[in-house]
Amino acid sequence: EAHSAFRTWRRRQQYYSENKSYISLLFCLLSCASSFGTRYTPDWTSLDSRPLPEWYDEVKFGIFVHWGVFSVPAFGSEWFWWYWKVALKPEYILFMVKNYPPGFSYTDFAPDFHAQFFDPDEWADIFEASGAKYVVLTSKHHEGFTNWGSQTSWNWNSVDNGPHRDLVGDLGAAIRKRSLHYGLYHSLYEWFNPIYLSDKQSGFKTQEFVEKKAMPELYDLVNRYKPDLIWSDGDWEAPDTYWNSTGFLAWLYNDSPVKDVVVTNDRWGLGCYCKHGGYYNCADKFTPGQLPNHKWEKCQSVDTISWGYRRNMKLSELMDLPSIIKDMVYVVALGGNYLLNVGPTADGMIAPVFEERLRGIGAWLKVNGEAIYSTKPWRVQAENATVPVWYTSKSSTVYAILTSNPMQNSFKLLTPKTSHNTVVTLLGNPEPLKWAPLQTSGLIVLLPDLPFSPAEAWTLKLDA
Amino acid sequence: EAHSAFRTWRRRQQYYSENKSYISLLFCLLSCASSFGTRYTPDWTSLDSRPLPEWYDEVKFGIFVHWGVFSVPAFGSEWFWWYWKVALKPEYILFMVKNYPPGFSYTDFAPDFHAQFFDPDEWADIFEASGAKYVVLTSKHHEGFTNWGSQTSWNWNSVDNGPHRDLVGDLGAAIRKRSLHYGLYHSLYEWFNPIYLSDKQSGFKTQEFVEKKAMPELYDLVNRYKPDLIWSDGDWEAPDTYWNSTGFLAWLYNDSPVKDVVVTNDRWGLGCYCKHGGYYNCADKFTPGQLPNHKWEKCQSVDTISWGYRRNMKLSELMDLPSIIKDMVYVVALGGNYLLNVGPTADGMIAPVFEERLRGIGAWLKVNGEAIYSTKPWRVQAENATVPVWYTSKSSTVYAILTSNPMQNSFKLLTPKTSHNTVVTLLGNPEPLKWAPLQTSGLIVLLPDLPFSPAEAWTLKLDA
Amino acid sequence: EAHSAFRTWRRRQQYYSENKSYISLLFCLLSCASSFGTRYTPDWTSLDSRPLPEWYDEVKFGIFVHWGVFSVPAFGSEWFWWYWKVALKPEYILFMVKNYPPGFSYTDFAPDFHAQFFDPDEWADIFEASGAKYVVLTSKHHEGFTNWGSQTSWNWNSVDNGPHRDLVGDLGAAIRKRSLHYGLYHSLYEWFNPIYLSDKQSGFKTQEFVEKKAMPELYDLVNRYKPDLIWSDGDWEAPDTYWNSTGFLAWLYNDSPVKDVVVTNDRWGLGCYCKHGGYYNCADKFTPGQLPNHKWEKCQSVDTISWGYRRNMKLSELMDLPSIIKDMVYVVALGGNYLLNVGPTADGMIAPVFEERLRGIGAWLKVNGEAIYSTKPWRVQAENATVPVWYTSKSSTVYAILTSNPMQNSFKLLTPKTSHNTVVTLLGNPEPLKWAPLQTSGLIVLLPDLPFSPAEAWTLKLDA
Amino acid sequence: EAHSAFRTWRRRQQYYSENKSYISLLFCLLSCASSFGTRYTPDWTSLDSRPLPEWYDEVKFGIFVHWGVFSVPAFGSEWFWWYWKVALKPEYILFMVKNYPPGFSYTDFAPDFHAQFFDPDEWADIFEASGAKYVVLTSKHHEGFTNWGSQTSWNWNSVDNGPHRDLVGDLGAAIRKRSLHYGLYHSLYEWFNPIYLSDKQSGFKTQEFVEKKAMPELYDLVNRYKPDLIWSDGDWEAPDTYWNSTGFLAWLYNDSPVKDVVVTNDRWGLGCYCKHGGYYNCADKFTPGQLPNHKWEKCQSVDTISWGYRRNMKLSELMDLPSIIKDMVYVVALGGNYLLNVGPTADGMIAPVFEERLRGIGAWLKVNGEAIYSTKPWRVQAENATVPVWYTSKSSTVYAILTSNPMQNSFKLLTPKTSHNTVVTLLGNPEPLKWAPLQTSGLIVLLPDLPFSPAEAWTLKLDA
Repeated sequence: EAHSAFRTWRRRQQYYSENKSYISLLFCLLSCASSFGTRYTPDWTSLDSRPLPEWYDEVKFGIFVHWGVFSVPAFGSEWFWWYWKVALKPEYILFMVKNYPPGFSYTDFAPDFHAQFFDPDEWADIFEASGAKYVVLTSKHHEGFTNWGSQTSWNWNSVDNGPHRDLVGDLGAAIRKRSLHYGLYHSLYEWFNPIYLSDKQSGFKTQEFVEKKAMPELYDLVNRYKPDLIWSDGDWEAPDTYWNSTGFLAWLYNDSPVKDVVVTNDRWGLGCYCKHGGYYNCADKFTPGQLPNHKWEKCQSVDTISWGYRRNMKLSELMDLPSIIKDMVYVVALGGNYLLNVGPTADGMIAPVFEERLRGIGAWLKVNGEAIYSTKPWRVQAENATVPVWYTSKSSTVYAILTSNPMQNSFKLLTPKTSHNTVVTLLGNPEPLKWAPLQTSGLIVLLPDLPFSPAEAWTLKLDA
Repeated sequence: EAHSAFRTWRRRQQYYSENKSYISLLFCLLSCASSFGTRYTPDWTSLDSRPLPEWYDEVKFGIFVHWGVFSVPAFGSEWFWWYWKVALKPEYILFMVKNYPPGFSYTDFAPDFHAQFFDPDEWADIFEASGAKYVVLTSKHHEGFTNWGSQTSWNWNSVDNGPHRDLVGDLGAAIRKRSLHYGLYHSLYEWFNPIYLSDKQSGFKTQEFVEKKAMPELYDLVNRYKPDLIWSDGDWEAPDTYWNSTGFLAWLYNDSPVKDVVVTNDRWGLGCYCKHGGYYNCADKFTPGQLPNHKWEKCQSVDTISWGYRRNMKLSELMDLPSIIKDMVYVVALGGNYLLNVGPTADGMIAPVFEERLRGIGAWLKVNGEAIYSTKPWRVQAENATVPVWYTSKSSTVYAILTSNPMQNSFKLLTPKTSHNTVVTLLGNPEPLKWAPLQTSGLIVLLPDLPFSPAEAWTLKLDA
Repeated sequence: EAHSAFRTWRRRQQYYSENKSYISLLFCLLSCASSFGTRYTPDWTSLDSRPLPEWYDEVKFGIFVHWGVFSVPAFGSEWFWWYWKVALKPEYILFMVKNYPPGFSYTDFAPDFHAQFFDPDEWADIFEASGAKYVVLTSKHHEGFTNWGSQTSWNWNSVDNGPHRDLVGDLGAAIRKRSLHYGLYHSLYEWFNPIYLSDKQSGFKTQEFVEKKAMPELYDLVNRYKPDLIWSDGDWEAPDTYWNSTGFLAWLYNDSPVKDVVVTNDRWGLGCYCKHGGYYNCADKFTPGQLPNHKWEKCQSVDTISWGYRRNMKLSELMDLPSIIKDMVYVVALGGNYLLNVGPTADGMIAPVFEERLRGIGAWLKVNGEAIYSTKPWRVQAENATVPVWYTSKSSTVYAILTSNPMQNSFKLLTPKTSHNTVVTLLGNPEPLKWAPLQTSGLIVLLPDLPFSPAEAWTLKLDA
Repeated sequence: EAHSAFRTWRRRQQYYSENKSYISLLFCLLSCASSFGTRYTPDWTSLDSRPLPEWYDEVKFGIFVHWGVFSVPAFGSEWFWWYWKVALKPEYILFMVKNYPPGFSYTDFAPDFHAQFFDPDEWADIFEASGAKYVVLTSKHHEGFTNWGSQTSWNWNSVDNGPHRDLVGDLGAAIRKRSLHYGLYHSLYEWFNPIYLSDKQSGFKTQEFVEKKAMPELYDLVNRYKPDLIWSDGDWEAPDTYWNSTGFLAWLYNDSPVKDVVVTNDRWGLGCYCKHGGYYNCADKFTPGQLPNHKWEKCQSVDTISWGYRRNMKLSELMDLPSIIKDMVYVVALGGNYLLNVGPTADGMIAPVFEERLRGIGAWLKVNGEAIYSTKPWRVQAENATVPVWYTSKSSTVYAILTSNPMQNSFKLLTPKTSHNTVVTLLGNPEPLKWAPLQTSGLIVLLPDLPFSPAEAWTLKLDA
């Protein structure tokens, strides 16, 4: 226990030392101290003091997978049910009127969630090839359909219905074989669960849904699948006291089978996000303007319109490879992790256009990965040179990532300080580059022909 | 309260006086006494002391309706799911293998439970025309699918799935319009409910299923639909202490909205049937050899092979009208009620062959009903005359029901005692019949041409 | 050839001799003469001169079976497609709008024509038990779907689609095993066949449909299945010259494998019915007021509303057994055959209510069949006695069929002439009955107790 | 007429003059002469003499679209039916066994050919953006299902079934709006058409199928949709005399509404391909080693495994953009047209991965199109420089297309002859490039930084 607390302290120290954020460090020392030999108590002060397990900040890049009954209509969004029945969006209503018989209900989609082509090893191969180091699957989205055989979701889960298969378990096994980390998305609320609605009706004074459904399933997930990450969601209608979030987290951190490695996010009740929990997701697609002082993650979907698969998506609605790389680079430069989403088909396939994006990222990371993995934010995060440049760092090394082709032979960077020993290289290029210091600070580098990169991003590495 | 206890006493007295069962009467006096001004306590001694509400013994004849997801495969039996997946009966396995894709699950049948032709008023018209005075619908069979929008059976009920309609409520409204009594069948256990299975696993030491599912639904049924009868079933795997049956019944008899009228049967836990509860069903199709000393009911299905609809039923597997009438007459003669079952189609129709049976019974009861409704068992229940004869009685009137055509002009009955005032008539025939006393006891009656009766049963009425 | 012509002559002579219709006889002699040693020419004068094969008049009672894709919606009528798409009947349009997705077409019903329970032997058992001596199946109705693997109806036949089975062949084999005669209904026109519609558009000046579809299929049917009867239909929009009917019939009578036994009806083109062909059907459910001078057949459906199965039929819409018997008796008394229709389900079952009718007829025929089979119309066909009476005859025997219970001990018949030798019996009753002649003509018979007959019809047999 | 013959002569002269193929030219003069003022006769000598309408050689690049009922299983190949039922390929059999009920037939797929997202204008936009100048749609593949409402394919066409829409007409209208040429693929044979099979059985001595199905449909297609191109297929089992191909082509060239513009290929009967007809396709994916002396076309599918859509395609099975460009460039350099195939989904979508390929080609053609469209093969077709180079030409201009990045600043071409006036440019680069002649022949060019090209191909233009 003492040893572990010491490791935590070292970790934090390393994390903050680069930023010279002494106040934070001090805070860390205090908070870490509190964990020597003690257990977390079910309150935010205690829970928030838990150091984030090391692996998470190192991996930087993960894959998000939205899969569920919504993959069957595969139209509009994974919020299909809600948009159709509550928001009453005309395009959803019309889609149903035009293509289904009257009285067709959302539950009637479940039998067509066949997943007949689902090969977890193929998925895991693609994910691994993308250079991602963790994968987060929707174990249950707001529709309440569980992708494992939850005994509290009888006849509304992937073993009793549709795929007749433990999707959470089967993907997990393949992910683990490849030494990737495995995370589980879990929605606390369920739009149409009558027990939830009844609690809501009561102004969340009753907690029947939490006792009978939400918590039993969370505990079940942790005990069965031992996830490295819990990606909580669907919390926003009720306070964390309704959800018993602190109770769950205390168990998770103290006594669960994953207490030492598990990472959580911040969606644990109204008002929690960006404030409590593990790392911060804040709002969807949260984009900080400057370096946040807490580990964070940006999740983003290749399909800009939906997290779930859409049968009628068009190319213009998808992110192309350069945009994805740009997005990832800025996130990592600002200390975040990047969780990129793909929605598989109800048949169980990753669409080739998504596969192409993922393999494209992998190809880029093969060359440029050392500027991403296990890096820390640098003194300065970005610089507007001829083209936008983002910085990351590792010990005394600084990486400057160019997110477009400067179309010049020489390139100026104003922020780095150089010495005689400074060595500049272009990742992927064997020879060190010629460079010269600029007057006040910075340097000018002589670029070689930039190697062809469909990702349109290149990295200059400055070794002190 | 006192008044009600007195009425109960009177009722019991009447019931037993005919049988001259003085010991029973004495017992009754004692037990009724205990109910003066008191409430039932949740134990069998108290609950069993509750007098059966009067209406039930008077009505004699009811209709049982088995309707559910099993009506979709409509093959073999309403135990389809169990026979297929647990008993592994070859004909069920083959049926699925031959007609459905691999991986087709029982839940996949639910979307085809359309009930598109279901017109509750048409059903109620047929039931009324049958002469039945109560109708019992399966609100939930062992499959666990609820025919109303139970909030503890989310996505496995008739409002969320299939019919998208409150079947229990809609039929109830039509039944009540015709002043028939409305009863609800309810299965305590659910074959495949994982929470039930988990309780079972524990040797019924945990009661999660009872708390979360069985009891909430029973209370919901009573509060919403105010049934006149609860036909409990599916109790046999666990003791009544597991089911909390006595607790429920105490509430039902003391505080529920139907406390004064509701009738229950005897399936409230392992070992209960034929021993505790309201009237006795004992085993399915229970056929006592002699007059039981407790009110009972025989349930019987027109389709002798199944309670649920079968698409491939053949005429030879169905009861014909004379068999039904014979069965009903013997049951009534022995003090029972007769609950005759029909299984509607998934489309919502009562098959014409069932309709024909029901209307045939009604036609017979129109003429012979006075020998059935509100009668009491007589001193002697049956006599083997030229043809089998069954006796019922009402005050000083005795009914002798001939269950086949004696094919003779004169007919001897040995048991009745006659006087000079005795008047003998054939129900449906305006003129009194000539008769003469026999030597020791009994009489010989001169029969008229027996009117055409597809039911093949005729009633001689002996007024003292 | 000469021998056969002679037999024909004898047959006709017998047929007409009872009626003392000498003019007809004369005509027969002439027409039969023309067939000595000659072949039929493709014109009505020649074809109409062909004597009806003997068996047909003898059998009297057959079963009509309407089965096709219309058995899948099983709603309204076997004219579903037409009523929905051409007549635009609101109930059909609404049925589709309420229960099927937009764009659902009639052809989409075909995959659900499963016939999975179809056991031809079970059907044949029921038909045999009904006392019918011939069975006529719709080989192809106006929808154009062929119940055999017609090679000119590719992908719109029972082998390529739905049942994936040769329904015409499979039923035929079972029918033949039981020595029943097998007939095939065949619709000449097909409502929506574009080739037919194009011929129609041309005012039937082109005959592409006849050449490519109608005739190839008729020849195929005859060559493959060797039917004893061709029940032609769907002829009325075009003259027989369009259909090449006389050409087909000449081949059928001269050269086909069934030339000696095949019977045809009269629907061979606009204006043909009641005028040309084999026996006459005239209009559907044709009901002559007096004895026609040409062999005829009445077809009638147990379901008075539809020939095809309807999932939502009600008992009140079906003929009961007594009505069927009455109908059959009047038809036979007037020299007709009675072809009673049942529509099987798409699953391949004869609904029990139909089975019950058929077995009921069989039970009645077991006792009364000798008054039906192989009889001739008598001098007088009907008499309004206390109850309606119909007469049939066989040699010197006269049958008087009472179609309700006179509820009297004695019964008067005014038409028969009696002698001292006259013996009167009630069919099913071993003992001859007492009778006495009436003054001018007729007799009074002393009736025994009429045996129970759910068919409500009894036969008095008068042997000269 | 004379004028048109003259134009033909000129065209041919131009075509061959570049190749200095004088013997061919002579032949041309003779054959063209024969067409002055005359009509084509139904024999190959005459039909083969018809000059290919000009537009076809100019456009170079077209899109092939395979769409049909095979798009519903969308598994394995558009030859699904054949592989499943005739070739008995285990993976097809297993796919059906695992995912469909027994007895499920190929025709049962048709109702799921919904095409609900099919927007012909969106397709046409993508096709136009690809730079293609013609689009060829499967009007009917070997399965026999017609994508228009053919009246000789009743109940097996896109208007009666599935989409309930005239796919051929709707796409055609959108294609024409954008001034693209519209071609129709048509399979002569139909694997399972019983009439075809019967002709085949006869050793193709009977021609019923040709008379009733193949020819009526071809004529109907031409008359209704006025295609610019007929892409005939499915001819190989029978000689052209069976198919009446020459008769059809004579009509097409002499009297059809498209006689002046229509182009045809060479699949008109066993032994025809690479020998008779319009341009030559020869075998699928035909790849000549040197310049053919007849206009030809290579068709190729983005999905290397299938022409029809496959739900389970993987990225590794698809051509990437550089391979496509390389393929197209080599084809054009050798005088061919390039017809690139995409298979839309049964829902009516072009998968984004295909859209991306097509738009990528378009982007490349926007810069490099002048080296493709309206070019002629050059004196030399290819040169193995540092990287492979393909040549095309237009008047005195020569285009050298580099199909990979030479990664050098200077580049040698050995074949072109230069003069002082020769100007060398890189397409897409504004400035002329510096160059110097090499000793014997050829030149060395100083390359600029090659602009980023995901297609990985660049064009050097040499103006004499």
